[in-house]
Amino acid sequence: MKNSNYCIIMAGGIGSRFWPVSTSNTPKQFIDMLGLGKSLLQLTYDRFKKIMPPDNILIVTSDKYKNLVLDQLPEVKPENVLTEPIRRNTAPCISYANFVIQSRTKNANVVVTPSDHLIIDEEAFVSNIKTGLGFVSARDVLLTIGIKPTRPDTGYGYIQLNEKSDVDERFNKVKTFTEKPNAELAKFFVESEEFLWNSGIFLWSAENIQEALSTHLPEVYNLFAEGRNKFGTKEERDFINKVYSESKNISIDYGVMEKAKNVYTLCADFSWSDLGTWKSLYENSKKTTTKNVITGSENVIVNNTHDCLIHVPPDKIAIVNDMENYIIVDSGDALLIHRFEKEQEIKEIVNDIKREFGEDKA
Amino acid sequence: MKNSNYCIIMAGGIGSRFWPVSTSNTPKQFIDMLGLGKSLLQLTYDRFKKIMPPDNILIVTSDKYKNLVLDQLPEVKPENVLTEPIRRNTAPCISYANFVIQSRTKNANVVVTPSDHLIIDEEAFVSNIKTGLGFVSARDVLLTIGIKPTRPDTGYGYIQLNEKSDVDERFNKVKTFTEKPNAELAKFFVESEEFLWNSGIFLWSAENIQEALSTHLPEVYNLFAEGRNKFGTKEERDFINKVYSESKNISIDYGVMEKAKNVYTLCADFSWSDLGTWKSLYENSKKTTTKNVITGSENVIVNNTHDCLIHVPPDKIAIVNDMENYIIVDSGDALLIHRFEKEQEIKEIVNDIKREFGEDKA
Repeated sequence: MKNSNYCIIMAGGIGSRFWPVSTSNTPKQFIDMLGLGKSLLQLTYDRFKKIMPPDNILIVTSDKYKNLVLDQLPEVKPENVLTEPIRRNTAPCISYANFVIQSRTKNANVVVTPSDHLIIDEEAFVSNIKTGLGFVSARDVLLTIGIKPTRPDTGYGYIQLNEKSDVDERFNKVKTFTEKPNAELAKFFVESEEFLWNSGIFLWSAENIQEALSTHLPEVYNLFAEGRNKFGTKEERDFINKVYSESKNISIDYGVMEKAKNVYTLCADFSWSDLGTWKSLYENSKKTTTKNVITGSENVIVNNTHDCLIHVPPDKIAIVNDMENYIIVDSGDALLIHRFEKEQEIKEIVNDIKREFGEDKA
Repeated sequence: MKNSNYCIIMAGGIGSRFWPVSTSNTPKQFIDMLGLGKSLLQLTYDRFKKIMPPDNILIVTSDKYKNLVLDQLPEVKPENVLTEPIRRNTAPCISYANFVIQSRTKNANVVVTPSDHLIIDEEAFVSNIKTGLGFVSARDVLLTIGIKPTRPDTGYGYIQLNEKSDVDERFNKVKTFTEKPNAELAKFFVESEEFLWNSGIFLWSAENIQEALSTHLPEVYNLFAEGRNKFGTKEERDFINKVYSESKNISIDYGVMEKAKNVYTLCADFSWSDLGTWKSLYENSKKTTTKNVITGSENVIVNNTHDCLIHVPPDKIAIVNDMENYIIVDSGDALLIHRFEKEQEIKEIVNDIKREFGEDKA
């Protein structure tokens, strides 16, 4: 019997917060952001290989990155790399991949995951995902992996817990999904112990998510459902190009999870970061005695420099003196010197760069 | 009749204060430090072409830079590029070039000049040098070009003036040469109006400087004089290699000018900087409205950044935010981020780099 557990790795983002290391030509998920010798995508793929056969792992990305995916994951078959002609957020992406899975397997259970997050303790991760797959395979539920908050972070969405599941008390019913809160609210959320961070990792049966999509997002669902016989055939490509141009741009969180009634969460036993900011990368990286994170080159010398993240290309010499709380990132093509506490401005900067120097520079 | 005015351009320095733009592979004089489209050496050569025939301009440099000189000055004949096997400061350099000139012309007048200074107002420069050549050709004197100080700079040597010359009151007898003074002394020098900066540009007849060398630096003079028949012959190369290894390392200022009695100075009518520091380069460069000097690339964007010197390679994008009074120099191979007021430390840093990463990196 075929293994019916599938994984959808979403790898279409452009990671503009990490400019200039992450650019639209080589976004964050394709980069070894932590100096581990593997890109975030490769780390994600390796984690799921411990849970399901490689053939059951699909990667959804942009047309532009297909070769990058195949280069980084040489054992992945080209037909397992689904490409989107334009970015339409997670709901269309998940709907597309789900129909592909259903064209292959009748009763599939599916894990949906971002490709650019950091997970520490793979054993706990594997165990949690397996537990979750067991839970969703037997029930008409949607499951999200929640993370116990360690600080009142305003960069994450929060999940409010409701009562525990009758059948398995490791799972809680979800009361509400909350968008990124302000600082005061985040503090309240964390202190109440009633909230978890939303990791963006979802589990469900293919059938249940289709059901939820058709209920809560019929305008997206119907578009894809119209071509249900085309997935896995030569007609898929043309159909997808057409459907994406017509589809709404909407997230699965907003379009489905916030509306569905049968949502559960499993509180993760592993450590997690979405590596969404240079600060989170800094926090998850090894620091020198003077609290600097230095990556890329071995030839970086600092003097009177503290709490900086310094990245320069391999072998480049860098001398950094009298700097504190700065992001100093040299990608070879571009140099960024920016205060940590202002890093929310980087996205705007990248937009300016696109306007001024063209898409491929940012 | 042959034109008897000669020029010796000294181009053997390594410009370590300007690391990482200036490296031992491509020192400062070979670089377009000011973004004028010509290297400092090319600018120096062009100035002297207005005063004497190109064949009378000799460039003294290290073996290592001979091809660089010929590349940058394609009209210079290889025999006019004299190369030193090791650096021995200016006295041996001048002695060597002087014997070469004497092997070509019996009665030569000679201008000796650094290759890496900035001179504004070439017309005044040409006029001053011609006036100086006229003065030294008729008299048993050594002449140095003095610069009226515009600030109490502690980075320059000072010349104390004595009475004006009887024959031409544009010239003053020199009372003393002073090494770089401390701040208090420099202030006193400038306020007294009795002192000029020593530009390092010297004029004399070939005969008079030989006489002065033989009197004040016989240990150097005798070494070179021993081979007086070898200059301009096939034997020159071997002879020079031998002599340099035996010669003292000593400057013409310390070895001759400070001791000679017949030294005069002509106060320059042109503006001058030795471009000896990033600060002096900053001061001599065009500033943006926010008082930054930005060179190298057109693609540098600054925010809340003032009084910085920013250099990145052509076309490189740089975003620099919240910086004040910093030198930010990216040579491609190396990145330096350093406070202006600590720039005297750069020489030490370069020595550290040589020790740690090898000579060719610094």
